[in-house]
Amino acid sequence: MGYIRTFGEIDGHPPGSKYRNRREIQHAGLHAHNQRGISGTAREGADAIVLNGGYPDDQDEGDIIIYTGEGGQSAEKKQIADQVIEGGNAALVKSHLEGLPVRVIRGHGEKSKYAPRQGYEYSGLYRIQRYWFKKREDGFQVLQFRLTFVGDADGISHLIQLDEGATPEFEFGHRPVERTSMLTERLKRRLSVVRNVKEWHDNRCQICGTTLMLPSGPASQVAHIQGLGIPHNGPDIEANALCLCPNDHVLFDNGAYYLTDDLKVVDAIKGSTLRPLRTHKRHLIGLNFVRQHRSYWTK
Amino acid sequence: MGYIRTFGEIDGHPPGSKYRNRREIQHAGLHAHNQRGISGTAREGADAIVLNGGYPDDQDEGDIIIYTGEGGQSAEKKQIADQVIEGGNAALVKSHLEGLPVRVIRGHGEKSKYAPRQGYEYSGLYRIQRYWFKKREDGFQVLQFRLTFVGDADGISHLIQLDEGATPEFEFGHRPVERTSMLTERLKRRLSVVRNVKEWHDNRCQICGTTLMLPSGPASQVAHIQGLGIPHNGPDIEANALCLCPNDHVLFDNGAYYLTDDLKVVDAIKGSTLRPLRTHKRHLIGLNFVRQHRSYWTK
Repeated sequence: MGYIRTFGEIDGHPPGSKYRNRREIQHAGLHAHNQRGISGTAREGADAIVLNGGYPDDQDEGDIIIYTGEGGQSAEKKQIADQVIEGGNAALVKSHLEGLPVRVIRGHGEKSKYAPRQGYEYSGLYRIQRYWFKKREDGFQVLQFRLTFVGDADGISHLIQLDEGATPEFEFGHRPVERTSMLTERLKRRLSVVRNVKEWHDNRCQICGTTLMLPSGPASQVAHIQGLGIPHNGPDIEANALCLCPNDHVLFDNGAYYLTDDLKVVDAIKGSTLRPLRTHKRHLIGLNFVRQHRSYWTK
Repeated sequence: MGYIRTFGEIDGHPPGSKYRNRREIQHAGLHAHNQRGISGTAREGADAIVLNGGYPDDQDEGDIIIYTGEGGQSAEKKQIADQVIEGGNAALVKSHLEGLPVRVIRGHGEKSKYAPRQGYEYSGLYRIQRYWFKKREDGFQVLQFRLTFVGDADGISHLIQLDEGATPEFEFGHRPVERTSMLTERLKRRLSVVRNVKEWHDNRCQICGTTLMLPSGPASQVAHIQGLGIPHNGPDIEANALCLCPNDHVLFDNGAYYLTDDLKVVDAIKGSTLRPLRTHKRHLIGLNFVRQHRSYWTK
């Protein structure tokens, strides 16, 4: 069966949903695999994990989870080698770098008061705050990830969905259902834009040419030129996006840099033209978006 | 009266709380001022705003707010000059850069279905997603800020607090009240650490010496050396913090850099020692924290 990787909530499967086995979870579209703990790829990121007592190094505090990566184990689940940042581990690192929400599914095999007595339960969305290598008593290194319970990518708890009738809803006028589907839509869209722009530029900053080299591989960020959402309603397309290093992302978003019509980078503070923007033949940039951004920071 | 600037929720004043006038809001510790819209300083950031129909440029969509900055108006509230990034505007920019939550208070003067019919209502915490200058029809530039409804700094919606009885609470074992006070504590603490470290180093990156120069002023980030919270439980103190540029922050947190006992920066990928860490006589760095961080990324 084909698995469509979706980041965020899956319609019809709210947090608290129960499943008898891994196959039901897989069919629900919550997790790609039938046995592996991590659902994801190094390129796309990880969309879900299952906690089922696979690692003694795991720690489950409910809203905070210390999750151990995959690999280095024998068929008998004995650690016989160090873990490395590849496969599912690289997928979780990618989700950390991109800030992607990870669905957490808890299984009865997990020794924790948050685990269901039988079967599996989808617990909701978590973010990967950080990761590190841990040296175990047996001398082998394993990767660990710190996940914290969050809402959707806008920081709105999915609990809103679970309780549409709550007074605050109507007082504050939120439309949780609409928002969540919007979110899923937006995440689906945005990820392909981010992926294309990064791949075209090979993670090189279009302003300074820097690529951040991490142990997990090259890294960069994607900035939008015309702001998304109200009031500017810039489109979430490659032509409205730039591949930047974190420094130039901050400088560009805060008006220290803007672009001329011939795509030269201007230092807004010194008022001096710095250098031409690095381009890629497949990455056409919309002049209207460039002008819109420039209008934020010039008279 | 002295005003203690607190970022995040104020105990005893949950979202939805009503107030008859600005003075009650001020006494509640929700907002520093009796008339001004923005509560904050360029140095500390903005902790709260009041929406009360002061600007026709404002836009209130409930969970998304376009808020117009302050300044440039005559006593008769007529725009007579451009707004600039200073005072309350600089405070909001600071909150954007630091990712600080802003309390939003809506007043009856606001023409919006989210405004109370009389008096004022505290609506909850919002984040400043971005800001820009807008050129009005009258030719004057005003600053605008896009705020989105969020939970606390960990992304947990305050709606959790409003509805402690909700089943998901007990299923997932969250302790909203405890968490919120923890959060407020943590924010209070963290802000002074961040402020001190940035001021000591004058926003210069301790690894590369870069300072990001923004129209709002110099900018930098503060990274923790030993991870906070479980499982590492690094302390939130200056000795466990570094002033870094966003690029080196990503490189340091992801194991591309670590430090030697004599505070030299090591490129973990090349395995080569780069340069000594920039230090400041008042900024003592804990060797135990340096060793802990190094243990994440070395055998």
